Amino acid sequence: MAVYTKVSAEEIGDFLKRFDVGTLVSAKGIAEGVENSNYLLETTQGQYILTLYEKRVDPADLPFFIALLDHLAAHGCKVPPMIADREGEKIQQLCGRSACLIVFLPGVSVSHPTEAQARSTGQALGEMHRALADFAPERRNMMDHDGWRTLADQCGQAQLDHIAPGLASVVAKELDHLDEHWPHALPQSAIHADLFPDNVLMLGDRVTGLIDFYFSCTDIRAYDLAVTHAAWCFSEDGGDFHGPISRALIGGYESALPISDVERRALPLLARGAALRFLLTRAFDWINTPADALVTRKDPQAFLRRLQYYQTHPEIFEI
Amino acid sequence: MAVYTKVSAEEIGDFLKRFDVGTLVSAKGIAEGVENSNYLLETTQGQYILTLYEKRVDPADLPFFIALLDHLAAHGCKVPPMIADREGEKIQQLCGRSACLIVFLPGVSVSHPTEAQARSTGQALGEMHRALADFAPERRNMMDHDGWRTLADQCGQAQLDHIAPGLASVVAKELDHLDEHWPHALPQSAIHADLFPDNVLMLGDRVTGLIDFYFSCTDIRAYDLAVTHAAWCFSEDGGDFHGPISRALIGGYESALPISDVERRALPLLARGAALRFLLTRAFDWINTPADALVTRKDPQAFLRRLQYYQTHPEIFEI
Repeated sequence: MAVYTKVSAEEIGDFLKRFDVGTLVSAKGIAEGVENSNYLLETTQGQYILTLYEKRVDPADLPFFIALLDHLAAHGCKVPPMIADREGEKIQQLCGRSACLIVFLPGVSVSHPTEAQARSTGQALGEMHRALADFAPERRNMMDHDGWRTLADQCGQAQLDHIAPGLASVVAKELDHLDEHWPHALPQSAIHADLFPDNVLMLGDRVTGLIDFYFSCTDIRAYDLAVTHAAWCFSEDGGDFHGPISRALIGGYESALPISDVERRALPLLARGAALRFLLTRAFDWINTPADALVTRKDPQAFLRRLQYYQTHPEIFEI
Repeated sequence: MAVYTKVSAEEIGDFLKRFDVGTLVSAKGIAEGVENSNYLLETTQGQYILTLYEKRVDPADLPFFIALLDHLAAHGCKVPPMIADREGEKIQQLCGRSACLIVFLPGVSVSHPTEAQARSTGQALGEMHRALADFAPERRNMMDHDGWRTLADQCGQAQLDHIAPGLASVVAKELDHLDEHWPHALPQSAIHADLFPDNVLMLGDRVTGLIDFYFSCTDIRAYDLAVTHAAWCFSEDGGDFHGPISRALIGGYESALPISDVERRALPLLARGAALRFLLTRAFDWINTPADALVTRKDPQAFLRRLQYYQTHPEIFEI
């Protein structure tokens, strides 16, 4: 959420000469997305996003992301594809980093979604999954079910209990439960895997863009709905479940893509997995980020509360 | 250079209803300026900057800044005035902070100015000073000559010498020299006091905006030219003096506003003062910012080198 690599206006101006996008009028470093450096550019022809990929994105993954965005855009999904230069190349080098020039999409990320906004988002997710049915490229989910136990071990029992007394035991039991019941046989496809409200642009109730695909990967399709559910259907601190938002999100999804019976039966477990995934990554970041660092540490307990809610309320998916 | 206060899209949307500026289409937190939170907004009517004032800007100073920008805009200077709401009010409250909606200006900040760009900047500074001849409001320079000794004391001799061996002695001697010779009698006016290339927007060789007036104050007018000189006429590390840029900057200034003989004779000393001012504030920030903080600490020695150059080359102002 910061600009890690400072690119001069002169360098951006030169960079744009590789493309047919006009000349530079304005360039502002923006605080957005995962740990990349992003600039909002205005040229004589329009607006663009310039992204320089920092340590969290492996340049070897860029072809997967580009193919995914191109596929989705070709199928009418509202996503921001990378722009090709005059030689047809989309992956550029700038200031020693891989970089892409990206289509700018209008819209804002809402903080307190309405039912109508949740419905639109569910529908956009369903349409995305439908469009990805014939998308062949694969990428391993680096944050998948198999990796959660490793992540928990890296956190350490003492550190987990330091975050919340008893947390290590909750995590250990949940890992055992998920190992025993994880529905490996469900349909897989490319998924977004991180569709928080931050990553959905809207104008009013209308979705104008799904963005930030840098966690996208191949995994259980219904798990993507579960992640989105955990991200959208609670108060930020996880203390309040919003039933109407949940029903709108799932209803919107179903309006675009049917949820099979086996998928529906698996949703409570997938949602527990989604809550555990963000609980563990937040716990890891919490433990490894100094309390006085300028990055705001996100509270792992917000996803502990979601996990506990999902453990005790499987019926919320019976709609 | 970060977004300190997170304002939701819903809050920004509501905020804009106070103004006649259309409805929100896009909002991006931008990394810009002193320690304020800034958002680049796009509405159905245009682009705007939303600034929330954090700890470095005293809300009591906002009326001075607003009057200054209004005065300059009315005199044809390219600055970004604050926008009044429907009640005529420019100082707003948002998320517990003072906030202003500000005119967006096109242009980019150059990192390696050309002579033509330095000339335009000097001219814009001269025009600004000319326009301010009849500007009455006053604001004390919080970083003025009188405050440098306090700042040096707050840094401490040991810490200064830790930055560079012998630095404490260089600073002490320079403070004595400036105390003895400081030209208090020179013409004063409102000045920008921080006109680094970051704070000048350009399109090609043309100045499209002077921005970030949050250090503006009442002080010796030629000191503003000295600050701008120290900011523009050296390599970033202060190791190389750029004579042609210096001559272009001063020549541009004179094309808009004559430099009197007493001002010209004072410029070497004022430039030493300007170099010491940024040396001391950078040293203070260096000492008080952890080495592993996410904010990049700016090297105080870049202004020690400028100071040493000014000490030994007073003749550069004899043009």
